[in-house]
Amino acid sequence: MRLSKYFVPTLRDLPAEACAVSHKLMLKSGMIQQISSGIYAWLPLGLRVLQKIEDIIRREHDSIGALEMLAPTLQPADIWIESGRYDDYGKEMLRFDDRGGRELIYGPTAEEVFTYVFRSHVHSYKDLPKILYNIQWKFRDEVRPRFGVMRGREFLMKDAYSFDLTKDAAVRSYEMFFQAYIKAFTSMGLSVIPVRANTGPIGGDLSHEFQILAETGESEIYYDSALDEKLGCTSIEDYEGIYAMAGERHDGSSCPIEKERLIVSRGIEVGHIFYFGTKYSGPLNAYVTSKCGERVPVEMGSYGIGVSRLVGAIIEAFHDDKGIIWPESVAPFLAVIIPVNEECVKMGDEVYHSLLLSSRDILYDDRKKSAGIKFADADLMGMPYQIIIGPEKNARRCVEVKNRKTGESIEVKVEQLDQILFSSTSR
Amino acid sequence: MRLSKYFVPTLRDLPAEACAVSHKLMLKSGMIQQISSGIYAWLPLGLRVLQKIEDIIRREHDSIGALEMLAPTLQPADIWIESGRYDDYGKEMLRFDDRGGRELIYGPTAEEVFTYVFRSHVHSYKDLPKILYNIQWKFRDEVRPRFGVMRGREFLMKDAYSFDLTKDAAVRSYEMFFQAYIKAFTSMGLSVIPVRANTGPIGGDLSHEFQILAETGESEIYYDSALDEKLGCTSIEDYEGIYAMAGERHDGSSCPIEKERLIVSRGIEVGHIFYFGTKYSGPLNAYVTSKCGERVPVEMGSYGIGVSRLVGAIIEAFHDDKGIIWPESVAPFLAVIIPVNEECVKMGDEVYHSLLLSSRDILYDDRKKSAGIKFADADLMGMPYQIIIGPEKNARRCVEVKNRKTGESIEVKVEQLDQILFSSTSR
Repeated sequence: MRLSKYFVPTLRDLPAEACAVSHKLMLKSGMIQQISSGIYAWLPLGLRVLQKIEDIIRREHDSIGALEMLAPTLQPADIWIESGRYDDYGKEMLRFDDRGGRELIYGPTAEEVFTYVFRSHVHSYKDLPKILYNIQWKFRDEVRPRFGVMRGREFLMKDAYSFDLTKDAAVRSYEMFFQAYIKAFTSMGLSVIPVRANTGPIGGDLSHEFQILAETGESEIYYDSALDEKLGCTSIEDYEGIYAMAGERHDGSSCPIEKERLIVSRGIEVGHIFYFGTKYSGPLNAYVTSKCGERVPVEMGSYGIGVSRLVGAIIEAFHDDKGIIWPESVAPFLAVIIPVNEECVKMGDEVYHSLLLSSRDILYDDRKKSAGIKFADADLMGMPYQIIIGPEKNARRCVEVKNRKTGESIEVKVEQLDQILFSSTSR
Repeated sequence: MRLSKYFVPTLRDLPAEACAVSHKLMLKSGMIQQISSGIYAWLPLGLRVLQKIEDIIRREHDSIGALEMLAPTLQPADIWIESGRYDDYGKEMLRFDDRGGRELIYGPTAEEVFTYVFRSHVHSYKDLPKILYNIQWKFRDEVRPRFGVMRGREFLMKDAYSFDLTKDAAVRSYEMFFQAYIKAFTSMGLSVIPVRANTGPIGGDLSHEFQILAETGESEIYYDSALDEKLGCTSIEDYEGIYAMAGERHDGSSCPIEKERLIVSRGIEVGHIFYFGTKYSGPLNAYVTSKCGERVPVEMGSYGIGVSRLVGAIIEAFHDDKGIIWPESVAPFLAVIIPVNEECVKMGDEVYHSLLLSSRDILYDDRKKSAGIKFADADLMGMPYQIIIGPEKNARRCVEVKNRKTGESIEVKVEQLDQILFSSTSR
C-alpha cells in the first residue's frame, strides 16, 4: 500500500480524555476515530489489526472444532425475560421498542440467542458435543467509557458456547477452550495469566479470566511468583495448584501463599471463560434425550474474547516512547519501505513492486516528506521492519532493514530482501 | 468439514410466511434462522456464503483503490440533524436514548459518518481523490420485513463513499464503481442489469440500480431488448443510449422505445450507486482548499451493495425444484463427498483427507444415513460438485463426479480427483 494514497490521518493534538497510552497511540497513528462517547470508527490501519486478530482467533477455534456462525446484533427482549437475566444487566443493556412496539435489546452477550438456536434444532445426545461461536459487535452502555477501545460501548467480541451431555464433557470443553485461548494469545505475542475469577452476570461456578499485565489495567490480580515459569503453558493442569486470583476473589486472610511470593499486579482482561452447567439450558428449555431416553438439560459453557479491546491491550504491552511496536502476527503491515530522499524513490518503487509479489503486507512511504518525518511516523505506526533506502546504500543496490523492536539494523542486498523478510528461518 | 460434526439443521416444516423460494431454501438447508421479525442468525453454511460474497466485494474494491475501514453500527443523532436528513428516514430509522440521555440511531446507511470522518482529517485537494468503504450491519425498521434476508431489518451492507475535488472527477469515480459493481456481480455468477433510478432519500441527480431478473423481485424494470447483448459489459458507455429504467422512473408516454422492444420484468436490486455532488459536504462542512486556495465543498458519491440480500438473490437466480445450485465462487463448499453405504466409507475417508490437502472447501457427508437422504440433502444444499462413491466404482478406485447444475456425471480415478476439481482448465 502506498502511504500517499492510503488514509492514515496521524494526529498531533490529542483530546484531553485520552489518558491510556494505547488510546493516545491509536489516535496519534490514525487507527481509530471517536464517533460518539465510547463508539469508534476503525480507520484502515486499525481495521487491519482487528482483522488479523480475528483470523488468529478463527484459526484456534476451527482447530478445536468450534463452528462459526453469526448472531444478529439486536435480540428480542423475550429471550432475556425467559432466561431470567432481563434485569441483571441494568442500564448497561440498551433497550428500545421497534416501530411495532416490540422490545429489542442490543446484545451485550449472546448466551440466550445461542441457546435458542441450539434448542430449536438439537434434540438428541447423538448430536453432542456442539460448540458454536461468532465474532460480532456488542454494546454495553458503560457509565464512563474510557481508555479508547479498551472500554468502549460498542465493541467487537468473539463469543463461543459449548453444549455437552454431561458435566465431565462440559469441563473437557472448558479445558479445550483454556488451551485454545492461551494458544491464540501467545500467537498474538502476548503473555497471559489465567486467573480464577468470579462469574458475575454470566453465572456458573468455574471461571477463568485471561489477563495481560499492564499498569493501565483495570483489574487487580494476585498471583504466586511461581506462575512466571508457567507462562505460555497451554494446559489447565500446568497451572494447577498455583495461586492466581482476580482481585475480587482474593482474600488476604485466607490466601495460601507467603507474602514474599505473592505478586500484586494490574492486568487487562482479554478473555473470560465460564462453565455454568444448566443455568441457561434449564430456563430456556434446551433439553436433549440422553442415551437412556431421559430428557436432560444440556451442560453449557461460554467463552469470550474482547477482540477490539485486544488491539489496545497489545499496544499497552508493546510500545516505547516513540510509538507502537507490533508483534509480527498482528501488525497492520510487516514492513514499511522508506526512501530517504527523491533520489532513492526509484529504488523504493522497485523494492515495493518486487515485495508485492510475495505479500500485500507491505507499506510504502512514498510521500514527499522529509526523512525525519518518515522515520518518526514509521516508529509511531510500529511496523516490525523498516526498509530504509539511503543514497549511499542505494548506489550499491543495498537497503537497511531495521528491526523496530530491537532497533538493530542489517544491510541487505535488494535481491535478498524477499528471502530475509518472508522466510522466518533466515531472520 | 465432516457433516456429522457440522451444524446444518435442515428443516422439513417451513413457517407459513416463507413464500420466496430463496427464503424457503435457506431455511430448509439450515443456512439461517429467524431470531425476531426480519432479524436472522446466520448458521455456519449461510455464513460461509456471506463471507465469500464479502471477499469478492473486497477484491473489486481494493482493485479500484477504495480503502476499507469500519464505521460503528450506532451513530449519534447529531450528525443526522446536521445533514438535514434526521426526518427523511421516518420510522424506518431506529432511534433511542442512551443512559446519558443522548440520542443514538442504528445506522440505516452512513453518508453522515463517513463525511464526518473525512472532514475531520482531509483539508486539501492534494489528498483527493479518496474512496472509503466498509462492510457493516445496518438496520431499517421495515413495516413488513419479508422474503427472508432479502428484505430483513438487520442486514449486511457494503457502503462506499467517494470524495473528489470536481464534478468531473466525481463522475469518473462513479464510473469506476459502475465497472467494479458489474465485475463483482459477474464474479458471483450473476447477470445484472444496470437501470437508471431515482435517488430517494440519498439524493443527487445521477443514480443507477443493479438489478437481477427474478419473478419474486420487488422492483419493476423496463428495458430495451437490445440490452441483452450488453450483459456482462462493464463500462458505463457500453450501456449508453440503451433504455433501462426503474419502474418509478419509467413513463409510458415519453418512453423512446417501440413497444415490441420494451421488456417489462421484475428484478431484485442488489446494488445502487449515487452521485450527489455537495448534498452532504455542504451542510456537513466537508470543504477542502483548492489549487487556487479557495475553500470548496467536496464532490461526493455513495455506493451500496446489499451483501446479505445477495445471498437470497443468488438463490433466486440459481435453483431448481430440488434445491440450490451455487455458482462456484460463492458456494459454501466446492464439493460434497457422498459414500453411498458403509462399505464405501473407507474410500470416503481417503478421498476427504486427500482433498483437504488442497482445499478446506470440501464437505464430507459421513453421516450414517441412507444414500437417498444424502443425495436429497446434497441437491438441497447445492454444492457445485457431488463426489459419489459407490461400491462398484469403489472396487476400481474410481468415483463419480456429478455436476449439480447440469446433472452430468463423469467417472474419475481417485488419484485424478484433485486435478479435476482444483484445476479449472481440466473441468
